[in-house]
Formats: sequence, C-alpha cells, structure tokens
Amino acid sequence: MDIYSFFNSSTSWRVRIALALKGVEADFHGVNIRAGAHREADYVARINPSASVPAVVEGAFHLGQSLAIIDWLDGKYPQPRLLPAEAQLRAHVLELSQLIACDIHPLNNLRILKYLRETLEVSQQRTDEWYKHWSAEGMEAVERLLAQAWQTHGGPWCFGAAPTLADCCLIPQFGNAQRMGCDLAPFKRASAIFAHAASHPAFIKAEPRNQPDYIPPAPGATAANVPSTKKVEE
Amino acid sequence: MDIYSFFNSSTSWRVRIALALKGVEADFHGVNIRAGAHREADYVARINPSASVPAVVEGAFHLGQSLAIIDWLDGKYPQPRLLPAEAQLRAHVLELSQLIACDIHPLNNLRILKYLRETLEVSQQRTDEWYKHWSAEGMEAVERLLAQAWQTHGGPWCFGAAPTLADCCLIPQFGNAQRMGCDLAPFKRASAIFAHAASHPAFIKAEPRNQPDYIPPAPGATAANVPSTKKVEE
Repeated sequence: MDIYSFFNSSTSWRVRIALALKGVEADFHGVNIRAGAHREADYVARINPSASVPAVVEGAFHLGQSLAIIDWLDGKYPQPRLLPAEAQLRAHVLELSQLIACDIHPLNNLRILKYLRETLEVSQQRTDEWYKHWSAEGMEAVERLLAQAWQTHGGPWCFGAAPTLADCCLIPQFGNAQRMGCDLAPFKRASAIFAHAASHPAFIKAEPRNQPDYIPPAPGATAANVPSTKKVEE
Repeated sequence: MDIYSFFNSSTSWRVRIALALKGVEADFHGVNIRAGAHREADYVARINPSASVPAVVEGAFHLGQSLAIIDWLDGKYPQPRLLPAEAQLRAHVLELSQLIACDIHPLNNLRILKYLRETLEVSQQRTDEWYKHWSAEGMEAVERLLAQAWQTHGGPWCFGAAPTLADCCLIPQFGNAQRMGCDLAPFKRASAIFAHAASHPAFIKAEPRNQPDYIPPAPGATAANVPSTKKVEE
C-alpha cells in the first residue's frame, strides 16, 4: 500500500494515526504541497484526481479524502475498529469527526490562507485573526460534544477507553492550532486528550516531526514568526 | 423523528434527500439561520451543541452533521442503501461525498461570506469571486471523479443506476451554485446528474422551494441581485 502524504497536512496526519493504530505498514511518499506537488498533472492523473493529500494507492485502486480512506481501512483492517459498530456511538463518533473535518479544518488550510493573503490582500494580522476565529468557534463546539461524550463514555479519549476516528481528527487539528499560536487553554477536554495522545506510540509515530518528508522550521523560526507563506495549517 | 432544517441550507437538503429516498416521514422544524436561530442558547443546549443545521432528534438521541445523520439513517433504514456495502464502491462514494462536504461547501456557506463582507470588509464583487473560485475548483475535481466513476459504473447517477450519498451531496451543492450564478456548463457530468434528479420524486420533495419553512425571494429579486446578506449559500 502506498500513501501520499505531507508531514504537516492534518488530513494526512489523520490517516497516519489510523494506520499506526492498526499496525499497518505502508510506503509513504512525501507530496510537498508548499511547492504545489499535489497540483502537478502527473499526480492528478495518476494518483489523486482531487489534487490533494492524502491519497492511498493499492494496485489499480486509488482513493483520496482522509475520512473515506479511514473508513476503507476500517473495513480492510478491522482491528481495532475506529468506527464503532453500535449505532448511536458510531453516529456520535462520526458527528465529532465531521465537525472537525467540515466546520474547522477547511477554513484554515493552506489554499485558503494563501487566497486571503495573495488574492484578497488581507493583512497577515487579519489572516491570523481569521484562523483563530474559526479555530476557536469550532473548538467550542468540539468541547460541547466532548462534554456529552464523556458523560456517557468517559475519557481518556473522545469516546471512552479506546481511540476512534474522532481522535484521528482531533489530534491533528489541535496540534496545528497549537503550532499556529491559538489559545487552547479554554478547551480542557480537548487539551487532556491531546496530552494523553502525546505518550501513545501510534500517535507519536504519526506526528509531523517523525515523518520521512519532515522539513524542520527555518533557524530561529517559531510558530509565531515563520514566513507568512509557511505559517499556515497544512 | 424530528428534523431541524433550513430550506436553503445545502447540508439540510442532503438529509432531506436521504429521508425522501428511504420514504421516511419526519417532523420538520424550520431553523432560520439567517436570523441566527441555530445560535440561540436553547437550540444549542437542547437540540444541537454544534450550533448548526441539520439535526435529528429521536427521544433522548440527538445528532448533528449531515453525513453522520445519513450514515445513521442508512443503518436504521437500509432500503435503499446510500452507502454501498462493496468496499471499493463504498470508498469512492465516500470520497466524492467528502470532497463536496469538506473541500467545497464549507468555504461558501453563510457564516464565511458574512465574515468576508462584514469583518474583513471584502467587497461584494470579490466575495462573489471567492464563491465562484472555490465552487469552480471543487467542481473540476468532482468532474474528474465522476469521469472515473462513470467508466466503471455508468450513469445516470454519480455511481450508476441508483442514487447514493454522493448524489445527496452533489445535488444541493450544484443547486446552490446555480442560484449563486456560477457558470456550471463546463461540468457536463454533474449537469446531467442534476437534470436527471430534477424529475425524481424524492429529489423534488427535498428541494428548498418545497419545504414548509421556504421563504420566497423578495419581489424582483433574482439569483444575481438578491440583497447581499441573503445572497449566500446556506
């Protein structure tokens, strides 16, 4: 199985967590979306018509979109299940995952921040405010859903004792928001889950800094002062 | 079963199509997102902690996020299946659905266009260009995925002879892009599917104009000249 991924892409990160939790080894191919590699004609024609990461290729089978990939992996490698079988639990796991995937992540990824900066000529400060606004609004909803989930299932993960698809989505979102300098202290449940994941081998294996295509920050760069075209959630 | 929906919301529209295809009757409650009804404390506390539409309530069970709702409905009312059982077909149906739900819809909905106009003070013209830019980029990817799908499965729907989750997502996206004055002629496969759905009873039943909370456009308004705060994909 070949996986096309970018180290800092939070959608790629979701798939890496799922693979690591299931103990599935795959061949990783770095696709440098900063350099536009996901838009090159050969990649779009041969790997992923959506012109995005991540993508999986196995023989003649090609698949993009991180949540579709994880659903497919869950059918193929059902241990451990990331989408529970019980109907109501499954529904709530999907609800939290889709909240992150549809209501938070799409607003803050590379192409959007580039369009704001370069096409709409929005200042760096107001672009940062845009990022923090949607991150905070989305994380408030995440916290409300986690409050409900923990009433029924407890922690330390989003839905009880074992990680699910929701954790595959939450950890990269939280990690990138942290890198972008968002104030995440108000989100106590999400913070606790993120701290818990930091010592879990599968989550460590999936971290951006542990990927073969990792690019270290420029010397002296911090989350708050990397160059504007790099300072984006990818 | 109670469904909380707004007539023009394309995520609500997805769920309405799924219910109509399955022949499930539900009690519809209009939530006027133009007036901010989805953010009212009572709605957030009692109905949907995500502060969005759609939501489903059945007894003590509450669920938001359209794709989570349709997955739950598919388990509860499996005829007809909107998420196929066969692994590769299922994967591709989810891929196209997630492309629309994550890469197109989130960029063009009400709260985003309001933020562009009101907080970033972007002109109406450049806000319209934003809408059309992301709609066109996303629809190009949709067309490439449909080309692959039709090679294997044919039409008249996204994946062959019967509608799936992908059609539940495509029709509202296409309908709202049309209302917003996007040029959709280049997207021949999507246009053909939209035309096919226009005469299907379930898709007709789910249309915005056939909802109990429908609000007709102001006299003299067209897609191109409705007031700016109304001229948004919802």
